[in-house]
Amino acid sequence: MNNNRNCILGLILLAGAAASRADEGMWTFDNPPAKQLQAKYHFTPTQEWLDHVRLSCVRLNDGGSGSFVSSRGLLLTNHHVARGQLQKNSTKERDYIQDGFYAATTDQEMKSPDLEVNVLVSLENVTARVLAALKGAPTPEKEFAARNAVIAGIEKESLDKTGLRSDVVTLYQGGEYWLYRYKKYTDVRLVFAPEEQAAFFGGDPDNFTYPRFDLDMALFRVYENGKPIESKDYLRWNPKGAADEELVFTAGHPGSTQRLDTMSQLEFERDMVYPNVLKLLKQRIAIAKAYAARGAEPAREAGSLIFGLQNGLKSIENSYKGLLNPSVMAAKQKDETQFKSLVTANPEWKAAYSSAWDSTAEALQKARPRMKTQFFRTLDSRLAGLANTIVEYVAEIKKPDGERLEGFYDSQLESLRFRLFSSAPTYPGLEMARLTGVLEMARAELGPEDPWVKIVLGGRAPKDVATELVSGTKLADPAVRKKLAEGGEAAVSASDDPMIVLARKLDPMQRETRKWFEDNVESVTLRAGEQLGKARFAAFGKSTYPDATFTLRLSYGQVKGFPMNGTIAPPKTTLYGLYDRAASFDYQGPFYLPLRFKEGRDKLDLSMPLNFVSTNDIVGGNSGSPVINRNAEIVGLIFDGNIESLVGHFVYDGETNRAVAVHTAAMTEALIKLYKAQRLVDELMAK
Amino acid sequence: MNNNRNCILGLILLAGAAASRADEGMWTFDNPPAKQLQAKYHFTPTQEWLDHVRLSCVRLNDGGSGSFVSSRGLLLTNHHVARGQLQKNSTKERDYIQDGFYAATTDQEMKSPDLEVNVLVSLENVTARVLAALKGAPTPEKEFAARNAVIAGIEKESLDKTGLRSDVVTLYQGGEYWLYRYKKYTDVRLVFAPEEQAAFFGGDPDNFTYPRFDLDMALFRVYENGKPIESKDYLRWNPKGAADEELVFTAGHPGSTQRLDTMSQLEFERDMVYPNVLKLLKQRIAIAKAYAARGAEPAREAGSLIFGLQNGLKSIENSYKGLLNPSVMAAKQKDETQFKSLVTANPEWKAAYSSAWDSTAEALQKARPRMKTQFFRTLDSRLAGLANTIVEYVAEIKKPDGERLEGFYDSQLESLRFRLFSSAPTYPGLEMARLTGVLEMARAELGPEDPWVKIVLGGRAPKDVATELVSGTKLADPAVRKKLAEGGEAAVSASDDPMIVLARKLDPMQRETRKWFEDNVESVTLRAGEQLGKARFAAFGKSTYPDATFTLRLSYGQVKGFPMNGTIAPPKTTLYGLYDRAASFDYQGPFYLPLRFKEGRDKLDLSMPLNFVSTNDIVGGNSGSPVINRNAEIVGLIFDGNIESLVGHFVYDGETNRAVAVHTAAMTEALIKLYKAQRLVDELMAK
Repeated sequence: MNNNRNCILGLILLAGAAASRADEGMWTFDNPPAKQLQAKYHFTPTQEWLDHVRLSCVRLNDGGSGSFVSSRGLLLTNHHVARGQLQKNSTKERDYIQDGFYAATTDQEMKSPDLEVNVLVSLENVTARVLAALKGAPTPEKEFAARNAVIAGIEKESLDKTGLRSDVVTLYQGGEYWLYRYKKYTDVRLVFAPEEQAAFFGGDPDNFTYPRFDLDMALFRVYENGKPIESKDYLRWNPKGAADEELVFTAGHPGSTQRLDTMSQLEFERDMVYPNVLKLLKQRIAIAKAYAARGAEPAREAGSLIFGLQNGLKSIENSYKGLLNPSVMAAKQKDETQFKSLVTANPEWKAAYSSAWDSTAEALQKARPRMKTQFFRTLDSRLAGLANTIVEYVAEIKKPDGERLEGFYDSQLESLRFRLFSSAPTYPGLEMARLTGVLEMARAELGPEDPWVKIVLGGRAPKDVATELVSGTKLADPAVRKKLAEGGEAAVSASDDPMIVLARKLDPMQRETRKWFEDNVESVTLRAGEQLGKARFAAFGKSTYPDATFTLRLSYGQVKGFPMNGTIAPPKTTLYGLYDRAASFDYQGPFYLPLRFKEGRDKLDLSMPLNFVSTNDIVGGNSGSPVINRNAEIVGLIFDGNIESLVGHFVYDGETNRAVAVHTAAMTEALIKLYKAQRLVDELMAK
Repeated sequence: MNNNRNCILGLILLAGAAASRADEGMWTFDNPPAKQLQAKYHFTPTQEWLDHVRLSCVRLNDGGSGSFVSSRGLLLTNHHVARGQLQKNSTKERDYIQDGFYAATTDQEMKSPDLEVNVLVSLENVTARVLAALKGAPTPEKEFAARNAVIAGIEKESLDKTGLRSDVVTLYQGGEYWLYRYKKYTDVRLVFAPEEQAAFFGGDPDNFTYPRFDLDMALFRVYENGKPIESKDYLRWNPKGAADEELVFTAGHPGSTQRLDTMSQLEFERDMVYPNVLKLLKQRIAIAKAYAARGAEPAREAGSLIFGLQNGLKSIENSYKGLLNPSVMAAKQKDETQFKSLVTANPEWKAAYSSAWDSTAEALQKARPRMKTQFFRTLDSRLAGLANTIVEYVAEIKKPDGERLEGFYDSQLESLRFRLFSSAPTYPGLEMARLTGVLEMARAELGPEDPWVKIVLGGRAPKDVATELVSGTKLADPAVRKKLAEGGEAAVSASDDPMIVLARKLDPMQRETRKWFEDNVESVTLRAGEQLGKARFAAFGKSTYPDATFTLRLSYGQVKGFPMNGTIAPPKTTLYGLYDRAASFDYQGPFYLPLRFKEGRDKLDLSMPLNFVSTNDIVGGNSGSPVINRNAEIVGLIFDGNIESLVGHFVYDGETNRAVAVHTAAMTEALIKLYKAQRLVDELMAK
């Protein structure tokens, strides 16, 4: 009673213990949850185990994860991660999304237009070097510039020294900075993808839910110098899968979480970000669907766009529910109050860190009036995006590395050019529809007198402007883009391509806005984040995991059903369930049975496990992550979280939060019996 | 704006219209929802249709519904409605619940010990006669006595005149009184029941949920004078079932709802009733489970008791959530406020009806301090219950009919004696365990000095008292009960049977308590209910349906899936789903596959519909109700409501409220292919 600080500390540590019992966390490979694993599962991963898993896992820069599953570079990920490249390789005549793809021989493996894959080969703590560079910066703005400069410098130095992609990663909101070096691959060829209806059975309704019945898998092969890579770092295939309650791991790249955000940040998200994002997404879905309704070919063109938008909408709608849930927010408030008391009870900590909450709140307060224009001053068009990148690119690369906009550092240029000069197709009709829609919305939301709207529309009809831009531009041709980028500022200023002309006109306003946000918001919240990160270390040590940043993380948990709608969801589903769900909807809409499954029914053992759930803490970006057992054998393939897990963006609840995976048994069974891909199974099963 | 009353009226009528669009209501056969049916489904049932359906439906006095499905008295209901009689006919050697039952010939059809079945043959509005008898009663207590007397008189007169079971039914909380005459059958023989695991696959977890995979059916045959009855009023069997979105009806006996209750009544339920009921149920379940854990035979004996208690617990826990849900209570409050404004705005209505809310609230306030003893002064034992009935019986039948306790009117005696002298077995070990448990709880909750506890225990240990009572009594023998009841007060006073002795000791306290509640609570709330019933008719006419009273009701709706846990629950399930759910739990616990289904798999068409859902408004008591189409053909068999429907005790939400039924296709398929009961299918399919 007379030691308040210890009492509060006790409460927090207790909460921490409960969380660890609940399999929470997306842990970095330098700080695995060894204590928790030993306590709950009597297992401690060795350094060798950790290194092997890390080197077997990949990041797909389309926005997902994957793993090597053979010594010859075979790479397993989700169909929905491969979807973008399938779309880009498809044509009106040949639709790989609808029909699937299988390369019966190595020769037939199909190159992806712009898929970059990264393997994390080393991690180095550079916190001291970054923080040293910030010391004595008189204002947050100066500090912001100094931080960018030192990061660009570290990355460039590493790139020059090792030739590896080198990214400085901010962890614990700035409590730590790490240099992550990646081996980069850009010759990634498609080996196998099932037809979409098998991969995405149940469609948007079943997305982010469970029980589930999806074969959401794809296989690529990674090449270097025209040949499949060879490596001993790959995950052995275990077609038996994991038993109920067995310990399993996922290693992948969760995109982003906001679990360490302050209350003012959460309230800003709730009030200013989510409502606008949802509004935008809904409108874009309506536009894309209207375009798709024009016919089979428009539907094919807009397919991946609609998938992505709907996927985002459902995910965001359900994480938004967390922000709107009074009990979630009350728990967050309680955590913050306890943490704040702990910091202010220590005079040294108080002086160094306690201003962070107020400064964050003030900066976000300042940002509020500008958020609407932030969201609605956007051109929803691939070509407009490319034009914008070209205009920025030629201006930025002239500057010293450390002074450039983030994204244009020397260390980032190779990957940038890979995407910029991609041979992926553009669909002019779809571009026009999207641009028209987004311009109509901008005019309606911001009014015709908004300076940005005036520049873009100049009083003309959105449709006319969109038509002129899309039909007039030559940027669909990668050679044209290359010529402009390599021609530098002279070529870009001389260009009369309407997309380039518009990007030039918008560039000053865009830079000004960016600068305003950097000076008034980001620089302040970054500084405050660093303060809170240090405060957290001071109070608790490195006992926790940082928020997700699309970098490699290890999660652990167990195969386990969960309470659902008055009953129990099972730990796994079976092929029987696929046939049940299809028949129970009379094979209509997103529940029709793929032809191969319809015709192949009697070949299959219907009691074979198809999907399963585990308590592993994952979020978007983990799609395609392997699920592995203690022996680092692959037993499953993450492809989703259940609807209850989407609040995981802000908070993890082990009672109902579940990762959803494809079972190795079903993948093996389907490859052999339905897809006649014995050669792949032989490769997977090779010792 | 200047006509507030019309404005409010408009709001309420609008709410009524919305409700009708949502397929709400358990309608009496004198007042079917003809307008709603015509507007939404373009169908109007004829009087002939209504009469035929009414005469084809039955009430099972074990607490469920059923229907005739052949011209020779074949009666379809649920396995879980038949369960009690299956239990009573089972022995240590022959367990019909575990193994199921099939009478291959009529000779083998098995008589039920104490199942009474009622068919509603006529309905007569007796409101005027009842209300006339109440006129001028100076106090609620006098009114209460007068009401009982006139009701007993009407029932007796009808019984004497027609020989039919005659019940006066209170509808619209006393807004109407109806004389319902029933043809009564007491020779009801079991023809078919599947093994429990097929009927109740998924057990307690899946109970009250959907998707579902249960063959929850049983067939009885009704006999009279030793022969099957013959009738043209039966429902034709349609093995194709109903299509998605098709209009379907249920006709059955919903047990009770409290949708027209006042706020003070709902608050009383929330604060005083539900918490105590839940506490009692949980304790009784623990006692029964502990007994069942002693071995196979104890488990068999306690089986139906545990089923019933768990079924009740899950149902009550989930309807309780409605009372705890602020938005449900706010909507109820809004309805009450609007209704009250409407009543008080009319001077005549105000004078006649508006005191009802306050008088109800005051009476319930008075009852609150007495509720704990009400709940915990109970003997949980079949034998103690029988003793209590015998002691009351011999005292009551000496009085003039109209002055007896309700339950002992002349019109009710035949059914009472049928139950009292039933040959159903009692299980002494289970009786002892239950009595010990409930006495321990009474002592713990009320203290050893509570007058009731003192009478029962007299300072002794609950276990000793229970053992003495159960091992000393002879009441398990129906002949002993008969002798006592027929021996009248003299025989009962002379008895030294310990159960009778205890019942005699408790009788004065019990009568005193009953009288206190009648005088202070029931008489007041009944009068208030009548006022509000009349007010409702005055304001809205007879545009709505009365709360459920375990009397025959017609519900309508359509076959329809519903939004569930982020996705859509399908309109139906298939046999595939049964195999999926079993395999997905590794055939463990309540998910093991019945042997017949395991071995018979390849004989079945697995895409056959098994269960389906519809928007029909039903509650407990509707179990066993037929689902029929426009042609009054049977397409399904109600056996449950989904978890979302349990709040239906207080409010109907058409968005998610679903009735769950067994599909006629699955029943037909299983009878033919798994149970080799072709003779029954032939009878069902006979034109």
